[in-house]
Amino acid sequence: MNKIFNIGIVGLGQIGIYLYNELHIKKKEIEKKTGNKIQIVAISAKNINKKRKFKINRNIFYKNPLRIFDKNKIDILFECVGLSDGISKKIVETALKNKINVITPNKTLIAKHGDYLARIAENNNVNLEFEAAVAGGIPVIRTLKDGLSTNKINKVYGILNGTTNYILTEMEKTGETFHKVLKKAQQLGYAEPGNPKLDLNGFDAFAKVRILSALSFNNLISKNDCIMEGIENIDIKDIKIANQLNMRIKLLGISKIVNGKLFETVHPCLVGKNTYIGNVNGVMNAVITQGYPVGESILQGEGAGPGPTSSSLLSDLVSILRGNIKKPFGLPSNKRKKINVLSNNEYTNSLYLRFEVKDRPGVLSKITNRLAKFKISVKRIIQTPNKRNNKATIVIITHKTTESNSSKCLSIFKNDKNILQKPILIRLYN
Amino acid sequence: MNKIFNIGIVGLGQIGIYLYNELHIKKKEIEKKTGNKIQIVAISAKNINKKRKFKINRNIFYKNPLRIFDKNKIDILFECVGLSDGISKKIVETALKNKINVITPNKTLIAKHGDYLARIAENNNVNLEFEAAVAGGIPVIRTLKDGLSTNKINKVYGILNGTTNYILTEMEKTGETFHKVLKKAQQLGYAEPGNPKLDLNGFDAFAKVRILSALSFNNLISKNDCIMEGIENIDIKDIKIANQLNMRIKLLGISKIVNGKLFETVHPCLVGKNTYIGNVNGVMNAVITQGYPVGESILQGEGAGPGPTSSSLLSDLVSILRGNIKKPFGLPSNKRKKINVLSNNEYTNSLYLRFEVKDRPGVLSKITNRLAKFKISVKRIIQTPNKRNNKATIVIITHKTTESNSSKCLSIFKNDKNILQKPILIRLYN
Repeated sequence: MNKIFNIGIVGLGQIGIYLYNELHIKKKEIEKKTGNKIQIVAISAKNINKKRKFKINRNIFYKNPLRIFDKNKIDILFECVGLSDGISKKIVETALKNKINVITPNKTLIAKHGDYLARIAENNNVNLEFEAAVAGGIPVIRTLKDGLSTNKINKVYGILNGTTNYILTEMEKTGETFHKVLKKAQQLGYAEPGNPKLDLNGFDAFAKVRILSALSFNNLISKNDCIMEGIENIDIKDIKIANQLNMRIKLLGISKIVNGKLFETVHPCLVGKNTYIGNVNGVMNAVITQGYPVGESILQGEGAGPGPTSSSLLSDLVSILRGNIKKPFGLPSNKRKKINVLSNNEYTNSLYLRFEVKDRPGVLSKITNRLAKFKISVKRIIQTPNKRNNKATIVIITHKTTESNSSKCLSIFKNDKNILQKPILIRLYN
Repeated sequence: MNKIFNIGIVGLGQIGIYLYNELHIKKKEIEKKTGNKIQIVAISAKNINKKRKFKINRNIFYKNPLRIFDKNKIDILFECVGLSDGISKKIVETALKNKINVITPNKTLIAKHGDYLARIAENNNVNLEFEAAVAGGIPVIRTLKDGLSTNKINKVYGILNGTTNYILTEMEKTGETFHKVLKKAQQLGYAEPGNPKLDLNGFDAFAKVRILSALSFNNLISKNDCIMEGIENIDIKDIKIANQLNMRIKLLGISKIVNGKLFETVHPCLVGKNTYIGNVNGVMNAVITQGYPVGESILQGEGAGPGPTSSSLLSDLVSILRGNIKKPFGLPSNKRKKINVLSNNEYTNSLYLRFEVKDRPGVLSKITNRLAKFKISVKRIIQTPNKRNNKATIVIITHKTTESNSSKCLSIFKNDKNILQKPILIRLYN
């Protein structure tokens, strides 16, 4: 006990700098909790002169992050750059090979190279920790690896991206369009000012789904093509109609085992307003697991921002300082299996379909006939005419049907001149 | 690696026997996840012939649990007897002193003797794990010790008892009285058939509150007298009135730091139907923490029953098999402090007051004058006359006032012949 651990931090953006500050503030408490001492011996970022929220110690600054390893004996490295490849991968790889523990909030790195990096960590008997990679401050990685470790989990899903959840919540609340609310989110720091695309198109949530699957089902991270849809095309009109149907639109990440096969997806879902998930609003994240014998477990908390992220980064640090050597994915890499995947075509849902049509006789029957041809049975139809311009909105809620069926069925409508735009399809959460 | 760990189980009631079975089913998976082997070498219960759900191996059965230690080299002992003292304490004490790791779901033992037992465990460098003691399958202990370990937590509260939450939910749903629903709960196995008192009077939830406080605030377990009220006196009438007010009654366990002082309590609360906690129904448990920088975190799951409990017991086992030596309360006992407590009198709430009165002039004004005298200001009054018997029900929702104030104010009414029964007081959750 009372060993001194040397810490390096690479990347001093919003998260890295907050962490740097927290490590100073919490130094004594961390030492009390773990019986070991810490000191930051090296930091690195592209630009030493960038305006930062907290002052940095220039004496331990490196422009080239790889130089850190030459000049110092590092015990624990925080990777806070955030790329899926490039320097992020290089640093983590180099550190692990040099028997240095790595802590990272980098979900895209782990989702893409997690298996490879885990093997290096195991071979070198060091830790690769990534609690902050999924759902910010919610300790869901730890919960799956430790707390629920002996349960047979068959499903894990939830709201995994705070930015999109904030936007959807705000659209419903204000009635404003996606683009207006996105701007507000950027001003508030909830969405990246430069390129918010990876949040909006579901990519960020999808990386988290891949990581959750691996931890829940003990499989190697899957690489298959999946249904991944974001919220860029969510129209305020659908949010309002959902509201009338006592539902809300949420961007869900879903991973489940169906007949022994893995199915992963991210897409907007209509969920009931009276359900749990329908009430996780704003920047909150929630992860729900279904397991045996534990039943359904819910974890909810703030999913983004430097505070929650730093909370998770420090929990990883405390774990390492306490001497807990852990396999990055809970069990040894050679015991993790490749898992067969369910074809996207077999994915089954009730659907919300919205058609904007010319208000002419026969249009509705053409739609319903087409649905009938594909054995898609209708649960509910709401037709709202707009007398002024002789148009109408037809909303149809269907019973369950497969992806393959629905895409075949709907494909024809893009060539129909009575149907004024591509039909809107939003899946219902079952 | 590949060490063989000898396991003993003392207590083969509902939980012990389920665990015994699970250990057989999950043996391989546990060994795969931890790289070590396990074998059950000793079991003990009062009665070998009792009818049990799963068959036991009689060759390793001991009537006297203390004999287990003489005859075997035990590495890990499960204490599943469940008493706060007596044989439960004796076994755990003996095991720890003999450098045997202990795992227990026994909340009353930990709430009463946890500090003492933790010291023995630390001195002998073995683990005392009690994940299953609070909120069944929800890994809340682990989350506080590890996942949120560096956050400054200022409040932890929630629904900590599945039995009472089931009863309250069922009363609301069916409109049946407490006693009728209690019988149903007993038939379904949600409430103990013999003596359900410890669930109903808040004692069980209170033990959990004490444990949560110690983990959240790093204090020694407090021993002070607290406000502890159960649900035995909850009248279906109040549930119905709450319903009209768009509220529900929930038994909450609350622990918080107010001006640096600890305040712990368990009592029924009126909560909004549109709040998160107001929608945790049935046997579900939920624990909510407020911390900095992580913000609000929620953990929800099944709070009782052998399945969820066993899930937590096995998570403790996996942790020990992975070689994680941990302080039972997260930090060394000598670093845990005695904490000053807030006087119950200073506890402040809005109140729901129900008076059953003779419908005579001046009765209401007498009540409101009395409230005014104690500066308890009224937010809302609902008076419902019952013409047939010349009586009336007066419900008053007050603004915030202290316990000391409200008890002084209400004391007078028991001697008033126009007030037909002791006023009902239920606190509102703020």
